[in-house]
Amino acid sequence: MITPAERQSTTPERFFNAINSYQLTEAIKSAVELDVFTAVTEGNETTATIARRCQASERGIRILCDFLTIHGFLTKQATIYSLAPDSALFLDRNSPAYVGSAIEFLLTPRLRECHAHLTEAVRQGGTVLGEGMLHPENPDWVKYARGMMPMARRPAEIIADELRKDGEARKVLDVAASHGMFGIAVATRNPAAHIYASDWGNVLEVAQKNADAMGVGDRYHLIPGSAFETDFGNGYDLALVTNLLHAFDPPTCTKLMHKVHVALSPGGRAAIVEYVPNPDRVSPPVAAAFSLTMLAATDSGDAYTFAERDSMSNAAGFARVELSPADLGRNRLLIAYR
Amino acid sequence: MITPAERQSTTPERFFNAINSYQLTEAIKSAVELDVFTAVTEGNETTATIARRCQASERGIRILCDFLTIHGFLTKQATIYSLAPDSALFLDRNSPAYVGSAIEFLLTPRLRECHAHLTEAVRQGGTVLGEGMLHPENPDWVKYARGMMPMARRPAEIIADELRKDGEARKVLDVAASHGMFGIAVATRNPAAHIYASDWGNVLEVAQKNADAMGVGDRYHLIPGSAFETDFGNGYDLALVTNLLHAFDPPTCTKLMHKVHVALSPGGRAAIVEYVPNPDRVSPPVAAAFSLTMLAATDSGDAYTFAERDSMSNAAGFARVELSPADLGRNRLLIAYR
Repeated sequence: MITPAERQSTTPERFFNAINSYQLTEAIKSAVELDVFTAVTEGNETTATIARRCQASERGIRILCDFLTIHGFLTKQATIYSLAPDSALFLDRNSPAYVGSAIEFLLTPRLRECHAHLTEAVRQGGTVLGEGMLHPENPDWVKYARGMMPMARRPAEIIADELRKDGEARKVLDVAASHGMFGIAVATRNPAAHIYASDWGNVLEVAQKNADAMGVGDRYHLIPGSAFETDFGNGYDLALVTNLLHAFDPPTCTKLMHKVHVALSPGGRAAIVEYVPNPDRVSPPVAAAFSLTMLAATDSGDAYTFAERDSMSNAAGFARVELSPADLGRNRLLIAYR
Repeated sequence: MITPAERQSTTPERFFNAINSYQLTEAIKSAVELDVFTAVTEGNETTATIARRCQASERGIRILCDFLTIHGFLTKQATIYSLAPDSALFLDRNSPAYVGSAIEFLLTPRLRECHAHLTEAVRQGGTVLGEGMLHPENPDWVKYARGMMPMARRPAEIIADELRKDGEARKVLDVAASHGMFGIAVATRNPAAHIYASDWGNVLEVAQKNADAMGVGDRYHLIPGSAFETDFGNGYDLALVTNLLHAFDPPTCTKLMHKVHVALSPGGRAAIVEYVPNPDRVSPPVAAAFSLTMLAATDSGDAYTFAERDSMSNAAGFARVELSPADLGRNRLLIAYR
């Protein structure tokens, strides 16, 4: 299989880099926690001035900033550090596009612990930590709602605009509303729209605050509790099912989609936002790789292909499902028609 | 600083990938622990057969193997997985070049914990976990000696061959001998050579076993204890100081190099094996990045440039230091002449 020439030139570097890749996680986390990127934006460009601004040691800042330079998040000319364009846009705390808050959820100890038990999860076929991330009122979902909100704003706007093309929705169900951004984007575009947000009670406090802050609080209604158990009511033109279904196996997805189907009016639509890997399940990389998190953190969740989502939606009673070409970054928008 | 066009095309993907990069660490660790690469080498190429061989769930293996494919360690054609050339060479347990044992040390919990406290380490300028990795008889160094031995074999041979060009050494001091491979390589080339190995007692058991296995055990002598406190004796032609000095600050390095200098005969040499970053401290990437581990895991260790090593060796009494062009992979060989 391996030629002598290949053997000669092949090194174990990729393996060692992979083994050590957790160090990049820690370095980015530390840089966000210490606000290094904000410090550099403010004009602190040397280890001495960054260290003073970040209340850290000069030695620690020098080593951290060199590491961030090696990985391309900073650049270094002699002893002067600058921000890479994406660091300037997304990691400066004063940038409107700041996403550093995402570490609150993405690196929450429970999720790290789930991955730390990956070997057992592979053996067993699902999380070995009880319900994984899915126990009722898990405070990590409050972290999600707070930390991931900035990342949802732009996709929420794109989706709301996309959905309006087929007509305004007046009564909207937001299943697993989280920060509420997806429903709120619909409400801000249509003054006649009322949003009914379903999620754990602790999470809905965040959504209601966001709805109030964006001036739609009086048209924002809460359905606290498990999406599988609460009464959604009915007569909805539109249901939003965003970043939720990946946590469950196909029968459970079908069950929930059926509950959504029943809640919709004739002519109603469900907008599903999800990671959608290609049928090969190894592309596109981010969507396909998300399966690993579902293996580590849930019993039987997964990143499902379009064909699988289509099949589950059909089984739930939907007439057809369309994959929207809208560019949401990591996720895709699917529209299921009642 | 950022043009509107750049802003448009700039995404936070690199940030999210960096945040999640710990998942690659966990996936590679699981694959090694479950022996996935060995299973595929043996002809198990589908999720069903790999799962049976690895005593794991089919769902877990499918998700893990897809993740490894996304990261290039496997390839996938329809439902058939194959090994990338470097995976075949280094991660199949039956390959003579197998390096999977490295996870025992590189991912030892103590080291992970040091990095998990990186933010505090940056604030403080060194490890916040007491002596970090450097407490006496730390069993992690036994893991190092066992796990890193395969990686040391080839560099040890290259170094031994390189050093012979200047004449055979008869009395050799191996400071921080660990697995012993560097001294053993000298002994196997010169039947007149005697090796005096210094390291913690628990580590030297591994070195002695390796020396016995390679037929040089009767010329292998042990100096158990801290390299800073034990009596090295004197009259050495050659001292090996491999992968040790990075753990200390310059005055401590100078102190140890002075102790080595005193132990050498006139005309003796010290061979130093180390990460040697360029003066910019951000290249080459692996050598430069090693500073972060020293920040997290030691009080004041670092990856030192050639100029810094030269200066410490001179202060310790050495006449001159040469940087060998020998290709050792991640490390460099420096020769300090008494």
